[in-house]
Amino acid sequence: MDDKQVKEITSRNEDFGKWYTDVCKKADLVDYSSVKGSMIIRPYGYAIWENMQAVLDKMFKETGHENIQMPLFIPESLLNVEKDHVKGFAPEVAWVTQGGNEELDERMCVRPTSEVLFCEHYSKIIKSYRDLPKLYNQWCTIVRWEKETRPFLRSREILWQEGHTMHATSEEAKEETLRMLGVYEKFQRDYLALPVIVGKKTEKEKFAGAVETYTLEAMMYNGVALQNGTSHYFGNHFAKAFNIEFLNKDNKLETPYQTSWGVSTRMIGAVIMTHGDDRGLVLPPNIAPIKVIIIPIGNDEKVLSVSNNISEILTKKLISNKLDNRDKTPGFRFAEAEVKGYPIRIEIGKRDLKMDSVTIVRRDTLEKITVKIDEISEKVTELLKTIQKDMYDKALARRDSMIYEAKNYEEMKEIATTKSGFIKVNWCGNQECEDKIKDDLGIKSRCLIDDEKVDGPCVCCGKKAVTKIYFGKQY
Amino acid sequence: MDDKQVKEITSRNEDFGKWYTDVCKKADLVDYSSVKGSMIIRPYGYAIWENMQAVLDKMFKETGHENIQMPLFIPESLLNVEKDHVKGFAPEVAWVTQGGNEELDERMCVRPTSEVLFCEHYSKIIKSYRDLPKLYNQWCTIVRWEKETRPFLRSREILWQEGHTMHATSEEAKEETLRMLGVYEKFQRDYLALPVIVGKKTEKEKFAGAVETYTLEAMMYNGVALQNGTSHYFGNHFAKAFNIEFLNKDNKLETPYQTSWGVSTRMIGAVIMTHGDDRGLVLPPNIAPIKVIIIPIGNDEKVLSVSNNISEILTKKLISNKLDNRDKTPGFRFAEAEVKGYPIRIEIGKRDLKMDSVTIVRRDTLEKITVKIDEISEKVTELLKTIQKDMYDKALARRDSMIYEAKNYEEMKEIATTKSGFIKVNWCGNQECEDKIKDDLGIKSRCLIDDEKVDGPCVCCGKKAVTKIYFGKQY
Repeated sequence: MDDKQVKEITSRNEDFGKWYTDVCKKADLVDYSSVKGSMIIRPYGYAIWENMQAVLDKMFKETGHENIQMPLFIPESLLNVEKDHVKGFAPEVAWVTQGGNEELDERMCVRPTSEVLFCEHYSKIIKSYRDLPKLYNQWCTIVRWEKETRPFLRSREILWQEGHTMHATSEEAKEETLRMLGVYEKFQRDYLALPVIVGKKTEKEKFAGAVETYTLEAMMYNGVALQNGTSHYFGNHFAKAFNIEFLNKDNKLETPYQTSWGVSTRMIGAVIMTHGDDRGLVLPPNIAPIKVIIIPIGNDEKVLSVSNNISEILTKKLISNKLDNRDKTPGFRFAEAEVKGYPIRIEIGKRDLKMDSVTIVRRDTLEKITVKIDEISEKVTELLKTIQKDMYDKALARRDSMIYEAKNYEEMKEIATTKSGFIKVNWCGNQECEDKIKDDLGIKSRCLIDDEKVDGPCVCCGKKAVTKIYFGKQY
Repeated sequence: MDDKQVKEITSRNEDFGKWYTDVCKKADLVDYSSVKGSMIIRPYGYAIWENMQAVLDKMFKETGHENIQMPLFIPESLLNVEKDHVKGFAPEVAWVTQGGNEELDERMCVRPTSEVLFCEHYSKIIKSYRDLPKLYNQWCTIVRWEKETRPFLRSREILWQEGHTMHATSEEAKEETLRMLGVYEKFQRDYLALPVIVGKKTEKEKFAGAVETYTLEAMMYNGVALQNGTSHYFGNHFAKAFNIEFLNKDNKLETPYQTSWGVSTRMIGAVIMTHGDDRGLVLPPNIAPIKVIIIPIGNDEKVLSVSNNISEILTKKLISNKLDNRDKTPGFRFAEAEVKGYPIRIEIGKRDLKMDSVTIVRRDTLEKITVKIDEISEKVTELLKTIQKDMYDKALARRDSMIYEAKNYEEMKEIATTKSGFIKVNWCGNQECEDKIKDDLGIKSRCLIDDEKVDGPCVCCGKKAVTKIYFGKQY
């Protein structure tokens, strides 16, 4: 096998960071340009994002949301309206100070997120309880002036969606916050094969301006956490800052309650770092732009015509596929198929045809299966489902094997210094303990654990614990 | 009829500009914010854009194009690489000069178009004739620092798509330029019901850096031209400026040839100004987010249940529809349906039901038709086709009635000062004549006419004409 391409990928266990950027480049997902801190998302990478968008957009619309497009810029005075928010974002925005040949009277930032734009608009269009709820979403690019960047994970430009909703009551807004968290969790589980831990962030780690922030924490192959989406409940203090008011049924003025929620191309990073291996990308079938790659071996006419037939059969079944009959060695084409992570590879040679069969190779396990030609459509359909499920199960088992529980600070320190993964501990709820753990052990709180009883002392200060909580290293 | 909403729309013939912005606002297409020169595209307006994107994206993919995402910013030095290009764009870009709290070493503009970004990328990925053609497209936001703005027509931010392709030969690149012009023409004709004149721009009016620019010129209700898309052939001078080279089959280095092509949300403006009337928007069925609005009259239970049934029947036929049973007078709901331009309105009252029928109102002609309930699905399907066709025919007839031919300068002047529309004249091909006509008469060249024989003198200088050409006022 001509595995030169594979050999160009650093081993995961040798240098995970280098492995990651190797895969991003070798699988033709991204490229760099002279624009520092930004990336080019190449057609194959962008096709993954388009698939993600299509599924999520449908889920958003099914839950009653409408898309809208807000301006790209935010005047400084508008960003300044909500204090916590501006404090969180002002240090990391890009400022436009000149338009054409003229200096601007007021500088404007490229939106790092659009809460203030939505609030200004809502203050104009919400007058009555009949105008509520307002369930808007936006697909767009945002900019955050990051110093260190990494494809998909941390970039100066981010492709994302941001939902911003307004509700008559805090109960409805809280319900929406959890509903969209649930939509994200379902999407990441059923499409990306990602087992995520969902929960509330601590006060310290919540979004600038939010009352409550819920997070989806995915664990990468190396045990490091990736925050893979958030859903925020804002209460009504943004609405108050922007004078958003509505007449309720009793004709009295009230202030509405707000949420926002977002996921980004970072999810592509999570897919790579959860499922990928030393041969390259491994894509879950439900999100793969090309589910099946068909590789004829040799130039035999019958081999080519059967390959074409199989492609047509799969296309008719709406299974996206590609026939790779380029003038390259089989080994080269096999290796490339592996680097690109197509879930299923079908190899067709003269010898196979004598048996009326082909060879199917699973990308996730590299297992080879001989399949009769007239059973291909059925077998591929079934196998795609199996791969999707197995990838999730494997990721879940690995994640669970890397969650450790620490009873006291010594245990916590021992785990933090010798193992990768999440550490589950009792916590008193005090930020001083959270800070101490971060400073001592270099790990941050991931999210609170709501569904487990807590009993005993805080792992840090020894006072009575009020909750269990996950800690871990993060991207 | 409660036509207060309609009365709030200025008459087209009274003040076309005010009529236009009234429709944009009253139909809930756009809103303004504190971001000067930008607009908010509201859910109904954005749904029209999503429909346009879906159809065009499919057409692009069917012609072999792939989507990609380039950076939002362009460093000044990169913009400067191609001289004609930078001269055309530098005066109208937004400059980012600060990132976070720091002054940037080199300022960057927000992309006004992405030729230079694509070229830089192509210089890295094109090595061999096997890498050609490269057929990339990007859906994104661009920024041009316009002084005077108008919703959809001229805005500091524009949502658009930009195709950028590279080819081994100039013939192939020219073919691609015309292919995409054809895709645009077909889309605007079949979906937007817009009769457009396609042709080549003069040297003076072509795109900054292009060898040839082809345009789609739509004529608005008031006779003013709207450039509604362009397709450019670049030759290979961008490629030369960016050192893009490939090894041909004979192993010799060659420079590839390039195209770019784009359409934008401006097309929404063209739809409004071509089809709209004094009651508001009139949307062609093939692009309308809601094709049928169903309005029950009164609170009768049977009326409501029949209305629901009709909605379900249409939904099953994949005809997008909405049931408007809000607690508002029928007159109010009728007027709103007209302002929003839904192609078909179905009115259902007790009296209708006694006859087992409903009333269907065409938005384009306001004609009322009584239809038996069990024939609704068939009738609506047929009527949507008829409306689409009739809207095109009506726009075509109106446009053709406003195209005038001028034999000499006196005639041209007479037409330009007394009539609205396009003027067809003979032209010598000399820019001096083009400039004189613009300076004297305030009209610009639209495009060359390729398919008509020219015979006789230039309308301006009297020398031998080499082509016929359209002139007209423009947005």
